[in-house]
Amino acid sequence: MTRLLILGGSDAGISAALRAHEVDPSTQVAVVIADSFPNYSICGLPFYLSGEVADFHDLAHRTEDEIMDEGIGLLLDHTARSIDHVNHTVTMTDETDVAHQIEYDQLIIATGAVPLRPAIDGLDLPGVYFLRSMGDSFAVNDFINVHEPRSAVIIGGGYLGLEMADALTRRGLNVTVVERTPSVLKTVDASLGALIGAELQQHNVNVVSGVAVECIVHNGTQLEIMGTGDFYTACDLILVATGVKPLTNVAQGAEIMLGQQGAIQVTRRMETNLPDIYAAGDCVETWHRFLERPTYLPLGTTAHKQGRIAGENAVGGSREFAGTLGTQVVKVFDLAIARTGLRDDEAIQAGYEPLTVESTLWDHKRYYPGAHPLHIRLTGDLMTGQLLGAQMVGHAAGEVAKRIDSIATALFHKMNVEALNELDLSYTPPFSSPWGPIQMSAQAWVASL
Amino acid sequence: MTRLLILGGSDAGISAALRAHEVDPSTQVAVVIADSFPNYSICGLPFYLSGEVADFHDLAHRTEDEIMDEGIGLLLDHTARSIDHVNHTVTMTDETDVAHQIEYDQLIIATGAVPLRPAIDGLDLPGVYFLRSMGDSFAVNDFINVHEPRSAVIIGGGYLGLEMADALTRRGLNVTVVERTPSVLKTVDASLGALIGAELQQHNVNVVSGVAVECIVHNGTQLEIMGTGDFYTACDLILVATGVKPLTNVAQGAEIMLGQQGAIQVTRRMETNLPDIYAAGDCVETWHRFLERPTYLPLGTTAHKQGRIAGENAVGGSREFAGTLGTQVVKVFDLAIARTGLRDDEAIQAGYEPLTVESTLWDHKRYYPGAHPLHIRLTGDLMTGQLLGAQMVGHAAGEVAKRIDSIATALFHKMNVEALNELDLSYTPPFSSPWGPIQMSAQAWVASL
Repeated sequence: MTRLLILGGSDAGISAALRAHEVDPSTQVAVVIADSFPNYSICGLPFYLSGEVADFHDLAHRTEDEIMDEGIGLLLDHTARSIDHVNHTVTMTDETDVAHQIEYDQLIIATGAVPLRPAIDGLDLPGVYFLRSMGDSFAVNDFINVHEPRSAVIIGGGYLGLEMADALTRRGLNVTVVERTPSVLKTVDASLGALIGAELQQHNVNVVSGVAVECIVHNGTQLEIMGTGDFYTACDLILVATGVKPLTNVAQGAEIMLGQQGAIQVTRRMETNLPDIYAAGDCVETWHRFLERPTYLPLGTTAHKQGRIAGENAVGGSREFAGTLGTQVVKVFDLAIARTGLRDDEAIQAGYEPLTVESTLWDHKRYYPGAHPLHIRLTGDLMTGQLLGAQMVGHAAGEVAKRIDSIATALFHKMNVEALNELDLSYTPPFSSPWGPIQMSAQAWVASL
Repeated sequence: MTRLLILGGSDAGISAALRAHEVDPSTQVAVVIADSFPNYSICGLPFYLSGEVADFHDLAHRTEDEIMDEGIGLLLDHTARSIDHVNHTVTMTDETDVAHQIEYDQLIIATGAVPLRPAIDGLDLPGVYFLRSMGDSFAVNDFINVHEPRSAVIIGGGYLGLEMADALTRRGLNVTVVERTPSVLKTVDASLGALIGAELQQHNVNVVSGVAVECIVHNGTQLEIMGTGDFYTACDLILVATGVKPLTNVAQGAEIMLGQQGAIQVTRRMETNLPDIYAAGDCVETWHRFLERPTYLPLGTTAHKQGRIAGENAVGGSREFAGTLGTQVVKVFDLAIARTGLRDDEAIQAGYEPLTVESTLWDHKRYYPGAHPLHIRLTGDLMTGQLLGAQMVGHAAGEVAKRIDSIATALFHKMNVEALNELDLSYTPPFSSPWGPIQMSAQAWVASL
């Protein structure tokens, strides 16, 4: 019987627990969780704050009971403090700060990530929030309910920032997004970022690009924000959404090696440098299938995959992580924005000679009601014709997410751009065209050579 | 300068013409078209008859002018009568039945398919229609406008039959679908067929299964229909939608060899047995990527691919058709139904030992508004774990079409079922779950071993 201890009960931790128990039901699994919300969907927080999810309990992928019914022990409100890898013990404190020691045979670190704190004065003022945990969500929600703010500034125009711009607008607030880069959502190219900016403005979100916020001060009931280029505005609520960093303090204390961007270094079997200690999820670096090196790309999908592998390997398996392609999708008002693989700059760094061609197509036959433009940027390698990546912006009803999945599947198999035309994709006028938009964009890429 | 003559101006013919001209702009391309509607979307006819497409001209993938602007000549209202392959000429008649001869260097036969006429007495009675061409559509449309029928019987519960059940219901008719098999849409398994039957009935379509219509008679202003098991009903309009067969009379006259189900036999380069004569589209047999033999599977997507290859090869290319997977999708009221690859019976015939596992999942995170059940039947090979096919039924807004495309892309690369878990698919709560439904169905398949 293996005693498997898992530090962290979000995506990676619970996936690891479930998989270990599935592979070897005799495993005694215990999961240490810093709060009392195991297996909650962090990606769902904006939809709770928008009001679209009425009951926060619904955000749980599984309930506490469902997890325990799988034979998994939960140590809620416990925080791991140190690992003694020689004696195979972990010291943790409970909510009353009392210390405990637990022995393990195998350990999985899945402590996740925490918000980055940008170099801005005034981040600790009341009314300034980060958003990562259920506790953060409750705090923001309570603030809105109690203080009824009329305006919000979101610092950061990434995935979370834009989802929260949508959510707070839906909640009745007047929202401004302030972003350092020239266009929002810098994970897609600027021409697509401009489309997203236009969508935000159409929904009365004020978009301020190319401004770095420097300082926040309190003035009566309002918060004042100053930034580069004499930027100034005032608002009732500030949300800081400038990214995350891996939470590795316990790992570091145990002399576990760190890699990319301070994330825990792991093999593709999710092993750390110490025996019997695995790590998975937002606290670890991630093998990139196309770059063929580790990178830091914290995503829920990857956390689930890595957790599953760590769980399987901790009970004797030898599975390898196939690698990320950085596939992502986000819904912002009526748009879906997705990407997978490499963009030009990333491809050049990886030694490719990329060409990106943008096509604007219809998401289904234009004669059938409800067709919307679909913007596709396809990136391929000029030397070999290999497909390297794609970015898309289309209507939320235009099946954008699953179109990027077809490309992600093609990328997984290192297809050539031209070969996309050979794929037998589905067609009916309400959903596509006989050559699907992906294929038409591939034809445009080839024609532009 | 190559003189390229193409018989047929629908999907395959126009694709061939465009590709030949693209590859070698000096090619003199002429397309012979039996009516005056080149490059019209046959798949769009139900949406014209439903009223969703107000102007039938919108059904053209390209206008006549757009085609001619590409340097392609159109011979409208011309019908090919015979091919003299020794002298490289085709004899055709125009709308006044005057015969012409045209010389060619290269010939592509893309004459398409015509409706199957089942063994039913009374198919030529007024009020009984087939639906394949623009002419057919106008006839049905005129009949509805002039006679204002209140009820319709559709013979055949396949793709076209179900789309027309939707269309005529939308048009205000009381619709009955009569199908020989025990469930509608026999291209998917019966458990999914039952879901589709329920959807039809929920929209007041009467579904009669397991009945073969034998005879239609005229009685006053009504049509009476008799079938097996004492089936009897009366209605104002009958649509026969029992499939299609390849149109090969001209090819046969020229001693071009036929193959599967009487379709023109072709190589994967779309060559017939005669020199300088290619064939493509619904009139030819189709290489199946998984069966690794020719089959007959007339689909618009395949016609476009084959036409493109025939056009390229007719001007000196040597491209091969990668093969069909039989990927299909249809929208019926609020459902999307899709399939790709093999089902159990087909897999057994092909020498596999298939297992099919059905999973019912949510099309996106249940906590986000608008989640619907998604039914997935995944088929894999018990001996090797190889993925063989998938069938899905879900809500029309549930991105079903593009989910099947990811599986079609995985099938193209002969992935294993378990390996679907390695795919880096996109996730955000409004569109999917961290393990996408495809992956959860793969996990269910593996767990059932």
